[in-house]
This record gives sequence, C-alpha cells and structure tokens, in this order.
Amino acid sequence: MSTVSTAFTAATAYSNLSAIWKRLHHFSHLQALAGWDRMSMMPSNGNAARSNAMAEMDGLLHSIRTNPDLRHQLALAEKEALGDMERANLREIRRDWCSANALPAALVQKQSLANAKCEHAWRTQRPANDWAGYVVGLREVVACSREQAQFLATETGLAPYDALMDNFEPGMTSEKLDVLFGDLLTWLPDLVRKVRDKQAKQNIIAPKGPFPRAAQYAVGLGAMKLLGFDFQAGRLDESAHPFCGGVPEDTRLTTRYREDDFVGSLMGTIHETGHGRYEQNLPRDLLGQPVAWARSAGIHESQSLSFEMQIGLSRAFIGLLAPHMAAQFGNQPAFEPENLYQHMVRVQPGYIRVDADELTYPLHVIMRYRIERDLIEGRIEADDIAALWDKGMAEYLDIDTRGNFTNGCMQDVHWGEGLFGYFPSYTLGAMYAAQWFAAIRRAVPDLDAQMTAGNLAPALDWLKANVWQQGSRWTTDELVTRATGTPLDAMHYRRHLESRYLE
Amino acid sequence: MSTVSTAFTAATAYSNLSAIWKRLHHFSHLQALAGWDRMSMMPSNGNAARSNAMAEMDGLLHSIRTNPDLRHQLALAEKEALGDMERANLREIRRDWCSANALPAALVQKQSLANAKCEHAWRTQRPANDWAGYVVGLREVVACSREQAQFLATETGLAPYDALMDNFEPGMTSEKLDVLFGDLLTWLPDLVRKVRDKQAKQNIIAPKGPFPRAAQYAVGLGAMKLLGFDFQAGRLDESAHPFCGGVPEDTRLTTRYREDDFVGSLMGTIHETGHGRYEQNLPRDLLGQPVAWARSAGIHESQSLSFEMQIGLSRAFIGLLAPHMAAQFGNQPAFEPENLYQHMVRVQPGYIRVDADELTYPLHVIMRYRIERDLIEGRIEADDIAALWDKGMAEYLDIDTRGNFTNGCMQDVHWGEGLFGYFPSYTLGAMYAAQWFAAIRRAVPDLDAQMTAGNLAPALDWLKANVWQQGSRWTTDELVTRATGTPLDAMHYRRHLESRYLE
Repeated sequence: MSTVSTAFTAATAYSNLSAIWKRLHHFSHLQALAGWDRMSMMPSNGNAARSNAMAEMDGLLHSIRTNPDLRHQLALAEKEALGDMERANLREIRRDWCSANALPAALVQKQSLANAKCEHAWRTQRPANDWAGYVVGLREVVACSREQAQFLATETGLAPYDALMDNFEPGMTSEKLDVLFGDLLTWLPDLVRKVRDKQAKQNIIAPKGPFPRAAQYAVGLGAMKLLGFDFQAGRLDESAHPFCGGVPEDTRLTTRYREDDFVGSLMGTIHETGHGRYEQNLPRDLLGQPVAWARSAGIHESQSLSFEMQIGLSRAFIGLLAPHMAAQFGNQPAFEPENLYQHMVRVQPGYIRVDADELTYPLHVIMRYRIERDLIEGRIEADDIAALWDKGMAEYLDIDTRGNFTNGCMQDVHWGEGLFGYFPSYTLGAMYAAQWFAAIRRAVPDLDAQMTAGNLAPALDWLKANVWQQGSRWTTDELVTRATGTPLDAMHYRRHLESRYLE
Repeated sequence: MSTVSTAFTAATAYSNLSAIWKRLHHFSHLQALAGWDRMSMMPSNGNAARSNAMAEMDGLLHSIRTNPDLRHQLALAEKEALGDMERANLREIRRDWCSANALPAALVQKQSLANAKCEHAWRTQRPANDWAGYVVGLREVVACSREQAQFLATETGLAPYDALMDNFEPGMTSEKLDVLFGDLLTWLPDLVRKVRDKQAKQNIIAPKGPFPRAAQYAVGLGAMKLLGFDFQAGRLDESAHPFCGGVPEDTRLTTRYREDDFVGSLMGTIHETGHGRYEQNLPRDLLGQPVAWARSAGIHESQSLSFEMQIGLSRAFIGLLAPHMAAQFGNQPAFEPENLYQHMVRVQPGYIRVDADELTYPLHVIMRYRIERDLIEGRIEADDIAALWDKGMAEYLDIDTRGNFTNGCMQDVHWGEGLFGYFPSYTLGAMYAAQWFAAIRRAVPDLDAQMTAGNLAPALDWLKANVWQQGSRWTTDELVTRATGTPLDAMHYRRHLESRYLE
C-alpha cells in the first residue's frame, strides 16, 4: 500500500540519479548485512521475521528502481555534459535500471513463487533421489525463466539465453562461449587423462587428521593475512555454504570446517579472500555508485580463482603455508612443502562440481552450460536433463551417474532457483585469472622467486591497480584489454594448466 | 530528495494504520540487527558506512511516521468500531506517532548535533577529568533538552520533566517519584549501614582466578538455560557494553568478560536474559504492532532485575549455579553454596553506578533523578551539576568525589547524550520486581523450595503470563494492578531488601 515517490530537485538529472543510487547503496547495506547474518549467525527460528524484513526491503529497493520518473531522468542525463567517469556511471545506472524494469511485475511475482517452491522442495527431494518429483517444479521454473529471457531479449536485442547471461557477464554471448568451450573440449579431457597417469605413479603422503576447528581457523587467518585481507574492514566466520558477503566497506567471508580434512576449508577461505579483497578495494571516490561496483560475475570469479588457483595452489604459496600448518596441526612428513604441493594438486574426476579439482571443474561447467542454453532456447525440456546429464558426465569425465540423481543433476540448485546463465562465469573466471597472471609474469619476470620469498605484493598490487580499482569503469573487454593487451584469450589458461600439471 | 508517500486503501483507517506499523516493524528489524552487529561484530572501519546506512533508515522510519495523512487516519480510526485489543493498539500507535511528530524537524536536527558532539567529546574528556571542557557541550545539550521538554509538555499537558520521562515510563510523574524516592531515603541509607556492619563480621572466601573467557561463557550459557532462554530464537555474544538487542523473534544478548572476576559478566548475562525472555515472549498474535511492544523501560528493567536480583541472587539459584562454576573454574572452597551466596551479596558503596550492589544502586539513581529534574525545569544549570554531585554522594553514600569528575558526574554519558528522564526506570524496575515476587510467593508458597530443587517454572511462568504476554495491552498501573492486586507499592521492595540483607 505504500510506494516511494521521488521529488526531483532542480539539480542536473545526473546528480538526481546519482543521489538515488547512493540511497540504494545505503539501504542495500542493511539488506547485505541481514543476508550475511542469516547465513552465519541467525538462530533457526529467526528466519520468518528475517524473511519478512528482507522482503519489505526488496520491495522498497524495487520501488525506488521502478519509479516511473527514472526513465525520463535517464534520457535527460544522457544529454547532459558529463565527464568520462560520470558517463560510465550513467551507463551502469542504466544497466541496473533496465534489469529492474524489463520484467512485468506479474512475471517477477510468478517466478519468485515458482523458484522458491522448487528450491524448497529440492531440499528434501535431493536426499530422496526424487528426480520425478523435482522435475515437476523445475518445469514451472523453466517456463518462467524462458518468459524472463524473452522479455530481456526484447529489451536488449540479445538472444534469450545471452540476455540472461548478460545479467552476470555483460558482453558475453553463447557464440563466443561456444568457441571458447569448444576449443577447451579438444584438449582438456586428454590433459586430464595424461595428468592422472602421471600422478598415479607418484607416492604422496596425505596429512593425518583430525584437524581441530580452531587450528583450521588459525591457518585460514594466516592465509588471509598473507593475502592482505583487511581485518579492520572485514571478518571471517562460519556458514553451511562458504560465501563472501557484507559490503565493500565491511566484507564478511565465511568458510566451513570438516575435522577430517582441512584442504576444502582452507582453499574455500583463500577463494573467498579473493572475492573479499576485490570488494575491499573497489574505487572509493564513487563508492556506492554502480561504476564502483565489481565488473561482473566472471571478473569476480577471476579474483577468487587468482587467489585460489594462481596464488593458492602455487608451490611458492604452499611453501609459505606449510609452516602454519605444521604449527597448528603438528609437524608431519606430509607438510614437507613439495609433498604438500603434490597433495594439493591431485586430480580426481568426481560427481560433485563444488568439490572438483582445477582440471576437471571446467568440464562440469561446460556440460551445465550446454544443457541450460538449450533449455532456455527451447531445444530441450526439463524432463530431458537427467539423460543429458548422464551422457555428459560419461563423455567428459567418464563418470556413471545413471539413477544417481542426488549426486547427478540434482546436486546443484541453480536451475531450481531459476538461476540460468551463471555457470559460465566460473570457467570464464579461471580463464581471466590465467590471463592476469600471464600479464603479471611479463611485468614481473621473477614473480615466483618473489612469492617464494614471501613477497606477494607484486601480484596483489597489479590486481589492485588493474582490476579492483577499475570497478565498472570499463566494459569487460575494455578492462581485459587495458590490463593485458588483448581481449580474453584462452591460450593463457591452457598454458597455465599444462605448465602446472605436466611440467 | 525522496520521501515516502502512503496511498491509503479503501480499508478501515485502523487497518491502514496497522499495515503501516507492520511495515515499520519490518524495517526496524533491519535497523535493530545493524545496531546489534555494530556493537558486537562490526570491524572498526565499517563504522562510517554503517552510520550512513542507519541514518538513511532513520530518515525513512521518520518519514513514514511523520506522513501528514496519519493525523487524519488516527482521528478516523478513533471513531471506528474496534475491539479492546485494537483500541489498545490504536492508543499505542498514537503514542508512537506523537513522539515522532511532537518536535519540529529543526529542533531534532539541532539536538542530534549537540548530543553527538557532547557524547563524542566526553570520550576523551572523561579520562582527562575535564569537567570544564565537558560542561561547555553539556550546556548546549541541556538547552536543547529543555526545548524538547517544553514541546512535549505542550503536546501532553505534563510538566516538562515528566513529559521527557513519559517517553520511557508512561504514566509516571515526578510527583509520584518524589513520594517513592523520598520514602526510600528515610530508611535505605540506614539499612546500608546496618548491613555493612553485619557483613564486616563475616568471613567470606573469594573465588580465585583467573577465570578463562571460555569457562565464563559456558557458565553464562548454563545460567541462561536454567532461566529458559530460547537459543533457537536468540544468541549470546560479546560487546564492550552488555545489552539486549535484536528483535523479539531473534533476541541478541551480549556480555563482557574480565578474567580476574566472573561475577560482573555472569550477573550481566543473567540481567540481559531477563530483558531477552521478555522480548522473546511478547504476544505473537499482533507481533510488530505497538500493543505487542514491551510496556515501558521500568517494566523492562523489572524483568532484568527479577532475573538478576530476585532469582539470580537468591540462595536457591546460586545453589544451582555453584556446580557449574566448580566444573568450569575448578573446585574451590569458595564455591560452597552458602559462601558463594555471601560473596555475591556483599554490599560496598562505590563511585560507579553500573558497578553498584543491589542496596546502594538506588541511591545513585535518586541523586541523578533529583539533579536531572531540577536541570530540565530550570532550577539549576549544567554548571551546578559537579557541586550537587559531590554533595549527593557524600550525603547518600558517604563517598568523597570532590575533584574526581572521571568517577563522579562524568561517569555516565546519559546527560551528555540528551537522555533525561531514563534514570528512574532502573529503580522503578527494582521496585516492580520485588512486587512481582511478592505476588508469586503468595501464589506459590513453596517457591524457594521449588527453586532450590531446580524448578524455576513457577516464577518464570508467572512472569510470562502476567507481564511478557501482556505487551502494551494495559497502562503500567493497570498491568501492575491486574498482576499483583495493587498499583506500585514500594513496601515490597523494602521487605525484599530487609529480608535478604538483615535476616
């Protein structure tokens, strides 16, 4: 029954818009905090009140973004004399405005119900291996997402799937992805086989647990400090699913612990630290304005994967971590640095994407990408997913998932939640990360020696200057070209993997 | 540049108002969480962004409450046919509306600046014992608070000081307080002397520290469980100043630890648990509506003091806690229950109100009440406070504070923050608490035997039924009379103190 109206002042349209997005920034702060708290601190019975409060805020944020006056203000602002930074900010304000205004309210509501229902059912259907039950809800979700894609396609002029992907990775298209991923498939499965043969001959000592929670927390903090996380403007806590939340001014990371294995938690912490440092180092001049937001999901993943894969899994960094582990978990032969390194880069195809190693992870992603693209564009139906999953896992990873929906096509809930077009970001992130580090190595030829000596500054300073501080000043292609000299080139990714795993 | 307008539907005015206060409840949830987080979790550099976000929300909440249409809707609703509960809710909605609308925006802004400036300066002036510096800011604060009191007096028809107190303790007047506190002063100082003479002859063994933080946390949790705190709808954390925050659906308590003394932290935890259980057990039918809010500051303190003083300092409860302490801190002769009890009820006049024992605490409060009342009503000036403080402390507690502003009149920042009219709530709470327990003992003659046997349910269930579940359904006088048969009667308080400390 209440709406937010905006009384525009006599100031320029641009400054009016900028004030509105500043207001959105303040309200989103409270919403982000409530989301972080829900996952990390909130007791279970607080959930209903939290949901109501967050839904009220979602409604307010949406009503501010869909104020009918904004269309006119945007048109006016685009005719005003603006500096380059303001122009870039206006472009990003329009992007944000478009995504809030492209969809009719009735569809948003229908979709939100369908997604929530399907996600909620999945929580019990997945452990029950109940594909037949799950697909009923999924059909509705797919129908809504197709409608959404159609509206966004009309608005943007993109193909339907590309219009969804554009929300996460602006500028990326399935045409480009088909080339990138098609190329990957010509060499990656073969590389996996070669590496597995090579590793089968190695004799690696595994660290012996249990690894107490407090000791793992201490090792994680040690890694975050090495990586320059600012603890005056952020925290590390625990949650069921690790994530990076909070706000740029106060970035909240989470991890989870298993006392029989420390690697998952540690690499998760290092991964989230990459997301966290990106957020902590977004440009401060225009903080809160869309031009100061992180560029895209793929660029965000390129930071977490720079930390996890490029730095975290390097011999140099593992050498720096080894003494922390020995101090916290007790001295073990497994913590001899070269042994520890070999232990941490083991390749082992498996059912579960989030547990996959660096080499097999992209194969999980490519399979999902192909299925979700065909699904949105109507070439297949929700009912076809299970068979296509079995086929893809057999073909790419030699894994038999027939009848095992729990660890097959029901392992992720992205689709059940109506999240289509996100999966490619993970592998695009890995590719960008390899390209950043190829550029860093050109600029700092003795990078590995410096990192081995404990100096991570050359790599971190480069990322800060070339990525973090750029926010959304440039399109992704511009950002990558300015930083590395060329647009995305997957050659760097292949070289990185071959050099780490074959040499 | 933005305001919130409210489009009223064709529904009744009452239901329109009720929907608006539900919306306020949802937004206040986010604000309460952000406030709790700021005190317990937030890293230091997150403060500027948090302040901006919370100020934006304060502005939104204020703009909803000061929507000019509300005056008319309130008048309409008051003519509608309403049930008793709706009528009570409407009364409380009007109270809330009045306090947001009584003051001109210019005064609110001037006052907020004056208070923030004085409070900020106090942080360095207090340790520097700089009364001359502090009083400069305090003069401005007092001037603003007098203006505020005048506006509220005009609105309510109360005397200026009473109009301020009415924000915290509706229905209480200085006329009534002068009788209550005047009576107290005829017997309490004498009682303190008698008790100190008696205790001087006792030979008490003090527990030996250090008391590790984790062990204190475990003892605190044990106490909270005994007292029925619902951990599915709340938490215990740490902060510089203990408080009860969060929302009724998810109540967040904090405490602080000193490793050389566990009593302060433990009693603080028990105190906040009383606030917390009140919040957790407010009526659920109309949750979020003002009628389901806690009744008043005094009634809130009556719950924390029921837990801390009536239950927490009872021989029975200390007997229940003693084994927890022995388990966590190691077995010591000091944890023999009768010794522990005598240790915990020691009376010792001191400089600091928040550290005061049960017997001397009200003397601190009465002195502050008399000073702040005269200050608001213009009989004294800010510059007179220091001398009146010295006089009061000498007279009531035989403590010499001359020249010691740090531990004298600068120990509290209530006045520096413009918080006048709150202090009486603490001692009113202690009086109400004694009256609740007199009523409980009439209903449950073997209360102490039951508590000694570990059964706190009779006391807790009585409080739940008679206080917590009543919310703001009744005025304070009605609430007390319905629960105990009479309005506030300080005789119960005197009997409680004499029985605990003299018998």
